[in-house]
Amino acid sequence: MYTDTLTVNCMEYSSRAIQDPPQPVSRLLYEQVADRLTSIIDAGTLRPGDRVPSLRRTSTAQGVSLSTSLQAYVLLESRGLIEARPQSGFYVRPSLSARLAEPPVRTCPPGPTSIDVGALARQVFQAATDPAIVPLGAACPSPDVLPTKKLGRLVTAITRSAGSEINTYVFPPGRVELRRELARRTVDWRYPLPATGVAVTCGATEALLLTLSTVAARGDMVAVESPAYFGMLLLLEHLGLRAIEIPADPASGLRLDALASALRRHRISACIASPTCQNPLGATMPDDAKRELLALLSRHDTPLIEDDVYGDAFHGGERPLPVKAWDRKGVVVLCSSFSKLAAPGYRVGWVAGGRYHEALMQRQLTTTLALPALPQLAMAAFLRSGAYDSHTRHTRALYARQVALAREAIARHFPPGTRATRPTGGLVLWVELPPSVDALRLGDEALRAQVSIAPGPLFSPRREYRHCIRLNCGYPWTPVIDGAYRTLGRLASEQAASKRR
Amino acid sequence: MYTDTLTVNCMEYSSRAIQDPPQPVSRLLYEQVADRLTSIIDAGTLRPGDRVPSLRRTSTAQGVSLSTSLQAYVLLESRGLIEARPQSGFYVRPSLSARLAEPPVRTCPPGPTSIDVGALARQVFQAATDPAIVPLGAACPSPDVLPTKKLGRLVTAITRSAGSEINTYVFPPGRVELRRELARRTVDWRYPLPATGVAVTCGATEALLLTLSTVAARGDMVAVESPAYFGMLLLLEHLGLRAIEIPADPASGLRLDALASALRRHRISACIASPTCQNPLGATMPDDAKRELLALLSRHDTPLIEDDVYGDAFHGGERPLPVKAWDRKGVVVLCSSFSKLAAPGYRVGWVAGGRYHEALMQRQLTTTLALPALPQLAMAAFLRSGAYDSHTRHTRALYARQVALAREAIARHFPPGTRATRPTGGLVLWVELPPSVDALRLGDEALRAQVSIAPGPLFSPRREYRHCIRLNCGYPWTPVIDGAYRTLGRLASEQAASKRR
Repeated sequence: MYTDTLTVNCMEYSSRAIQDPPQPVSRLLYEQVADRLTSIIDAGTLRPGDRVPSLRRTSTAQGVSLSTSLQAYVLLESRGLIEARPQSGFYVRPSLSARLAEPPVRTCPPGPTSIDVGALARQVFQAATDPAIVPLGAACPSPDVLPTKKLGRLVTAITRSAGSEINTYVFPPGRVELRRELARRTVDWRYPLPATGVAVTCGATEALLLTLSTVAARGDMVAVESPAYFGMLLLLEHLGLRAIEIPADPASGLRLDALASALRRHRISACIASPTCQNPLGATMPDDAKRELLALLSRHDTPLIEDDVYGDAFHGGERPLPVKAWDRKGVVVLCSSFSKLAAPGYRVGWVAGGRYHEALMQRQLTTTLALPALPQLAMAAFLRSGAYDSHTRHTRALYARQVALAREAIARHFPPGTRATRPTGGLVLWVELPPSVDALRLGDEALRAQVSIAPGPLFSPRREYRHCIRLNCGYPWTPVIDGAYRTLGRLASEQAASKRR
Repeated sequence: MYTDTLTVNCMEYSSRAIQDPPQPVSRLLYEQVADRLTSIIDAGTLRPGDRVPSLRRTSTAQGVSLSTSLQAYVLLESRGLIEARPQSGFYVRPSLSARLAEPPVRTCPPGPTSIDVGALARQVFQAATDPAIVPLGAACPSPDVLPTKKLGRLVTAITRSAGSEINTYVFPPGRVELRRELARRTVDWRYPLPATGVAVTCGATEALLLTLSTVAARGDMVAVESPAYFGMLLLLEHLGLRAIEIPADPASGLRLDALASALRRHRISACIASPTCQNPLGATMPDDAKRELLALLSRHDTPLIEDDVYGDAFHGGERPLPVKAWDRKGVVVLCSSFSKLAAPGYRVGWVAGGRYHEALMQRQLTTTLALPALPQLAMAAFLRSGAYDSHTRHTRALYARQVALAREAIARHFPPGTRATRPTGGLVLWVELPPSVDALRLGDEALRAQVSIAPGPLFSPRREYRHCIRLNCGYPWTPVIDGAYRTLGRLASEQAASKRR
């Protein structure tokens, strides 16, 4: 039973909440209450349109004050889960994002193109290190979701107990403790990796660079997904390689028919793809498609460079197998890292190079010589202790939740005609705005409003996707993040409206 | 006063000592005694040919047993400092190495050559990680001389007190804490570096790779010292660059007349040199020559890539300035690291790129993306605390001593006609064997005897220096090391003798 006064107060609070959140009085407590209600909504016990228990009922049931309950409800409203109706109370919001369409698959030109995305990429990375800017650009997890303390304790234990091994050159293939743990994680594969089949790298970036420069020479053609991770396009540019774009489906990933056609028409030195939780689409290829991809490339004797950095961030149940799991002949070079789920500051990546493994390690000895010992030993201990697995379970659920909230915010704030992916995993969303919106201009305007995004043209060697953007969902939902989505929605709507005029 | 019996016993001991050292009874004690006597000899108080105090006198003076004194003398003999003369006692040995000639400067062919040294280099690096092999190949400091514990304590302190900064992406140019410390160390230069003029790299190797790939394109010609560090030659090979060899003088380094001539005859994209404590020669160019080098390259608008990794390991008094210290126009790209004096396991290097700095950082963002945070923060703390400076003072003296001992062992065990450098700094010796000795064969034979060396052909793109070897002196002198020099001497002598037959 609400009094009119209370309802009006709620409304005042809630409409102010997004712009200027009330100072938390007992932050932990009201967050706990909000989380409990969130899990009830998530479980489907309360459905869209259902009335949420009254503030008084919640106060009594949860043993908290009325004002704490109110703070919890305001938080739930800012998360997009409930809404206040004047003189009636709080209700579970209809899920707006259910109405968001997915972006269609794009066709790609058949020929190769040269690449130039450097300046734009640097802007996105630089924004990620500026605490004044809302970080929706680079695909970075929030410091709050990382196991930094746990890793720090392992580092301390290692430096205390270890001898000289933490301060000697670690030449390729890297510390065996880590390679053994990585190999152990592949025992359920059709063809498990031995520890000798894995080499440690400085993030997945070094793994990709070593692989590309080993399997392809300047001027060669490489098949890439469209849209594709821009860091990979920068590597192609750096190595003087030409990209053949293969459309990727937001639902099912790389289009095998298009790849098959490209392989028939061109002499392609390698195919780079992320078959699990693709960046930026979040698509995961079904197992059958993965095996078909392997068979297709094997027939053409073309290596697959499998970028699996988001594989462990699959939102659903069991983490899908990478293509490498079925690779008997060593055609697949698997590249991955711990940067997206656990340790961006440790720069521990790895490569399983198949038939190219020896060549990769020789190249690494020349170009890198050795990698620091401590990060490798810390990640080995993190894996061995089981902490990585429990952390990953937690983080996958968190990323899924953040992505769902972002989709809700997009549905609410972005102009009509906006589409967004339903990612199977990872921490990014790919958003297609109305065609009249210029993503590069939107990026500039957003940055002036202290919000960083990754404009679509970054994800294509030909600077396509001019009305698309990628949004990082690695940060827990806060009023600041919510405000950033409002800002982006307003800026996009303004552009869309001015074009119509 | 020696009895005959005691003298004979000494001789029996001492002749056995090198092959099969007596088991240490009170190792620390006899080493202390030996060290005290060593410093007396080093100070010139006892000179070559002087009689060493009798065993009894030493026992009394040092308050140790006769047998401890005997062990100390045996150790001194194995170090090549004293010798037993039958029925007379122990004498300071004439310094054999004073008679070792320095290798002459080699002339180099005027044209470019292609490079192939990979397999040999990998063998040397691999041997360095095998504890069963005496490590005279790769230029590695012994774990015993590194400040590993001190660094470990800093790491622990940082992981305890730091927040999320130890687990976030560190994009180029790297942590400002470290860049500031590096800049602070240049305040006595003619043109000190600002913190913004320095970028952190993964060892000096990444610094060299980034620089080479920025200033030169595939097929370009690059001037290199002869002999040159083989890791650098591997980088040239990797990048498809052609080397123009410029002779380096074992005493004064790069021959400027030869460089000037090459610059007139060829279109040279860059000159790579180590003007301070060159590897493998240990040569340091005088200040005037360094400034002349800078002026010469400036006139040709050709960048100098200055590899300074051994600069802090200068054996003499004040550490000489790098060429970069006088570089007003940004023509010099300084590349260095902490790997040779303090922290090979941390892989912290840096680059001061002058006019190329911005381009270097952009390239690093593409090829490396980010570097681990903890090693950078640890090295920043190590520098700030002053520990690096005191460690360096200690290590420079140690390397100088190891090199002197190695020269003595070479003078004693190697075949007549052997020459060796008198390095001004660093931890390696360059040895020229009689022309009939094949260094590659010697390397194979030594490896079978569990001794790793770096054969001369590694140090030249044309596999010159076929009768030269480089020896690592980064390990404290032990009977095992002494035995390795005996083995090398025997193998080289056998080759020399068989050729004469």
